[in-house]
Amino acid sequence: MRMTSAAPIAADAGTEAEAEAEVEAVAPAEPARRHSEAEVAFMRRALAAAEEAAGRGEVPVGAVVTLGDEIVAVSHNERETGSDPTAHAEIVALRRAAAAVGNWRLNNADLYVTMEPCPMCAGALVNARIRRLYFGCDDPKAGAVRTLYRILDDRRLNHRVEVVPGLMAAEGATLLRSFFGRLRR
Amino acid sequence: MRMTSAAPIAADAGTEAEAEAEVEAVAPAEPARRHSEAEVAFMRRALAAAEEAAGRGEVPVGAVVTLGDEIVAVSHNERETGSDPTAHAEIVALRRAAAAVGNWRLNNADLYVTMEPCPMCAGALVNARIRRLYFGCDDPKAGAVRTLYRILDDRRLNHRVEVVPGLMAAEGATLLRSFFGRLRR
Repeated sequence: MRMTSAAPIAADAGTEAEAEAEVEAVAPAEPARRHSEAEVAFMRRALAAAEEAAGRGEVPVGAVVTLGDEIVAVSHNERETGSDPTAHAEIVALRRAAAAVGNWRLNNADLYVTMEPCPMCAGALVNARIRRLYFGCDDPKAGAVRTLYRILDDRRLNHRVEVVPGLMAAEGATLLRSFFGRLRR
Repeated sequence: MRMTSAAPIAADAGTEAEAEAEVEAVAPAEPARRHSEAEVAFMRRALAAAEEAAGRGEVPVGAVVTLGDEIVAVSHNERETGSDPTAHAEIVALRRAAAAVGNWRLNNADLYVTMEPCPMCAGALVNARIRRLYFGCDDPKAGAVRTLYRILDDRRLNHRVEVVPGLMAAEGATLLRSFFGRLRR
């Protein structure tokens, strides 16, 4: 697993008290490793999707699935608007990508997401046989890639996912911080 | 967490070699604890859904979501027919239940599933705030309730799910065993 630094943040709105706790949990962003132009462009698209989510009152997390040079799915968290507890950005992106290619196996696909996946989403990445995950900021409250669990790295499971953390972590964290800051006011 | 014995089984079809490994992994069922009539009836409905899945060439796992005395969702694994890597029985059931009640929070709901949930599904149960999980046989290859992980019991996450394992474990295991047995031939 390639590992670089990322800015931790938490994400689960719910109550204002919860929102306050989220904001307190945000640590300053640290500089990330060098990424290719394409990697940065794909994460920028995920960040734009996250921003859209915020505009709809959803916790701003966005995701993109790529196959080679192509984007096959873009999504954002839609748990509130969809009344769907499974509608985190990653799950929505995986479903759309699989529908687009007509196969649940996404062996050669990569997923970009603006915050570290939770156990549900990390498990889904393994189930979908995703090749590589790029994520932005860490999630100290539910991160299942390197914070609370290391599900993508578990040799007991039937697939491992390569991981590139910290891609545009500061940008991902800023979106979340200002969303929870607004909730708090 | 209430704990009783359950029959382990594995589930992820894919290749015939994999299917062979699955069948070898099946251990004999052990006697389960006493359950109420309603609990048994709900699990029987989940088993019927699992059987339907097998008829469609899907790994036979079925699930039911209940609210009080009422079933609000029934589902089975539809990963192949839906070309959806996230379409395990539990995920489909949670989405249907949330759509039925119009809220992603399923605080007072229970979920019945014929086999121990994987990390994706265990994480989804936490995200949906499910009150109690009843499951049948253990999953030695991906079980995330008590086999490989204990995600429903993790005080670092923002919700805990009560667990009743081993409910009609032998029946759940038999469905899987004969499905993988047929693949093997």
